Amino acid sequence: MRTLITNIGELTTNADHGMLRDAAVLVEDGRIAWVGAAADAPTHAEEVVDAGGRAVIPGFVDSHSHIVFGGDRAAEFEARMAGEKYAAGGIRSTVAATRAATDDELRVRLRGFIAEMHAQGTTTVEIKSGYGLDVETEQRLVRLAAEATDEVTFLGAHVVPTEFAEDPDAYVDLVIGPMLDACAPYARWIDVFCESGAFSVEQSRRVLEAGIARGLAPRVHASQLGPGDGVRMAVELGAASVDHGTYLTDDDVAALAVSDMVLTLLPGVEFSTRQPYPDARRLIDAGVTVALACDTNPGSSFTSSMPFCIAVAVRDMGMTPVEALWAATAGGAAALRRDDIGTIAPGMRADLVLLDAPSHVHLSYRPGVPQVRSVWKDGVLVAKRS
Amino acid sequence: MRTLITNIGELTTNADHGMLRDAAVLVEDGRIAWVGAAADAPTHAEEVVDAGGRAVIPGFVDSHSHIVFGGDRAAEFEARMAGEKYAAGGIRSTVAATRAATDDELRVRLRGFIAEMHAQGTTTVEIKSGYGLDVETEQRLVRLAAEATDEVTFLGAHVVPTEFAEDPDAYVDLVIGPMLDACAPYARWIDVFCESGAFSVEQSRRVLEAGIARGLAPRVHASQLGPGDGVRMAVELGAASVDHGTYLTDDDVAALAVSDMVLTLLPGVEFSTRQPYPDARRLIDAGVTVALACDTNPGSSFTSSMPFCIAVAVRDMGMTPVEALWAATAGGAAALRRDDIGTIAPGMRADLVLLDAPSHVHLSYRPGVPQVRSVWKDGVLVAKRS
Repeated sequence: MRTLITNIGELTTNADHGMLRDAAVLVEDGRIAWVGAAADAPTHAEEVVDAGGRAVIPGFVDSHSHIVFGGDRAAEFEARMAGEKYAAGGIRSTVAATRAATDDELRVRLRGFIAEMHAQGTTTVEIKSGYGLDVETEQRLVRLAAEATDEVTFLGAHVVPTEFAEDPDAYVDLVIGPMLDACAPYARWIDVFCESGAFSVEQSRRVLEAGIARGLAPRVHASQLGPGDGVRMAVELGAASVDHGTYLTDDDVAALAVSDMVLTLLPGVEFSTRQPYPDARRLIDAGVTVALACDTNPGSSFTSSMPFCIAVAVRDMGMTPVEALWAATAGGAAALRRDDIGTIAPGMRADLVLLDAPSHVHLSYRPGVPQVRSVWKDGVLVAKRS
Repeated sequence: MRTLITNIGELTTNADHGMLRDAAVLVEDGRIAWVGAAADAPTHAEEVVDAGGRAVIPGFVDSHSHIVFGGDRAAEFEARMAGEKYAAGGIRSTVAATRAATDDELRVRLRGFIAEMHAQGTTTVEIKSGYGLDVETEQRLVRLAAEATDEVTFLGAHVVPTEFAEDPDAYVDLVIGPMLDACAPYARWIDVFCESGAFSVEQSRRVLEAGIARGLAPRVHASQLGPGDGVRMAVELGAASVDHGTYLTDDDVAALAVSDMVLTLLPGVEFSTRQPYPDARRLIDAGVTVALACDTNPGSSFTSSMPFCIAVAVRDMGMTPVEALWAATAGGAAALRRDDIGTIAPGMRADLVLLDAPSHVHLSYRPGVPQVRSVWKDGVLVAKRS
């Protein structure tokens, strides 16, 4: 099956072709077979999609989400908007709701989020555990996540559960022992929330090293609520990405710039917790590779909209529209160490988004407006607006 | 034809009923016939819609838009995000594109915006002229706007066109003479952009008084780019609303609080021009009636998303979720002096939005996520998500 998408007004490839006008893309067997000028397009496609002069971009790669959970925290959000400060401890209320939910309840919810993400142009999503915090529930969460994505992250070390409040190190022992045994078969990644109120650098290092020893690759939550040593540790351990980075020291930025690690910014978190926005301009100018992700979760960022995150990154973090789009696609792919997604070039997966707009600039120029028209994942249409 | 919408988890009425749980609404001949507990709902409806425990809110009343125009200004937006300052003069580039567009080109575009707004829950929209700035084109714009809404505003005094740059008062003479003659039959409202770089208070007063003499009701753009005397003038002339209000003095706030005028905040403008957000909390606490609107236009705010405006108003302007929802529905109705929309009560127009969420709080709790499921205007389904 060959599908030709032609009459593309603006094609952002993130690849050698750069930004093309009047372009076409040929999709064959789920992969991109050809990219070039519409006038030169192959003529042997069985299906032709006329983009009508609209823009086509790579599918969004959302490299940070927590979409297997029960309940919500709308009341906590309301209280925060009325002046209460965000604290990581709120995670525990979602833990209680998640433990109480059945597999089917969690699965229905998860599938709803996946459909919602597809409709907003996301074709790859990483999913973390971390709302179970006991062996059985954490295993349920990675197992359910693995039904929906290849990018499963074991985050048993999300926060110390109430029952271990007096002895956090004993919880770390559980995470790196029986919990890791139960979860590693379903996961690709090991993650830890290295932050005051969650896990210390020493505890975080134990968690990541245990995961690495089991064949999982590391990624880290750090510097969300204040500066710390999480970035340095992440660089030392060769993490694929450090996520949040709201508070980075000059040393952090310098260490990131010379590493091959990605710094994943999560604008929805600052929006929804009223924290100051990190300065993406400073990072990019220093040579740091930046990704954008939604961090979809019921506590600190319940958006699942990559276009919204792009708009905020442009407005409040100093990114240009094209930098923000790169960060939300190729940047996310780099944060997941994937070389088959995030760009539009021959041989790559055919993960494509047709916008209801003439340019990628409209993602930030028209904030909040649904502008995703058609979405293909592996060449299959997974969302289409009527 | 009677339609019962039942099993509503949360119903925001903006009326005597307040916020209801487990509610139902009966629609008959385009009007709301009954509101109350689902258990007490009338049983004689021909059609029953099961809301599945989701939230229902009044349709959004977007009391400020400029959606009849040609071209766009994406490049200007990009330059602004790279550091250029917003100036009202950019309006002139849209004027050139609008004058060059045919009626059908403008009409197709306008209908696209109306459909896009319906899909986002907006059931009433005010539409301004102001990108023609000559007699013939301004008349085309109000005539086209009148095809799409009852709330048409003549805004010939949007900015001084290039050809009158040396003699702005002569342009005011044109606006209040032949242009008003040509446009008044299609319009309900007269508006003026009273701001440094647009029209002085004296010029603005001439425009509004001429419109009032022709039976149009006044509304005013003021204090968008800096403090000025526009609010005081608007109060004196009995304007229905003053719009923008980014820079208000204490005297402005005091004058608004004792008037029956609405202050319409336009969060998309501050978002898209990187201006400081006005403090809605200060206004509400002082007793000012606040509305929220999108100001959809290609220069300073190209969003058409009332949910986005609500999210920004909650995050950055100090409104609670319920205040922001009120401002986007009943507040907009007040700004348009309409007593038949903006609330859900017997006798009102059946303009209703079923959300894909359990609560109105989710409009700000999940920024950017499309959460509008079904939209009825005058009891007719005008948008539905598949």
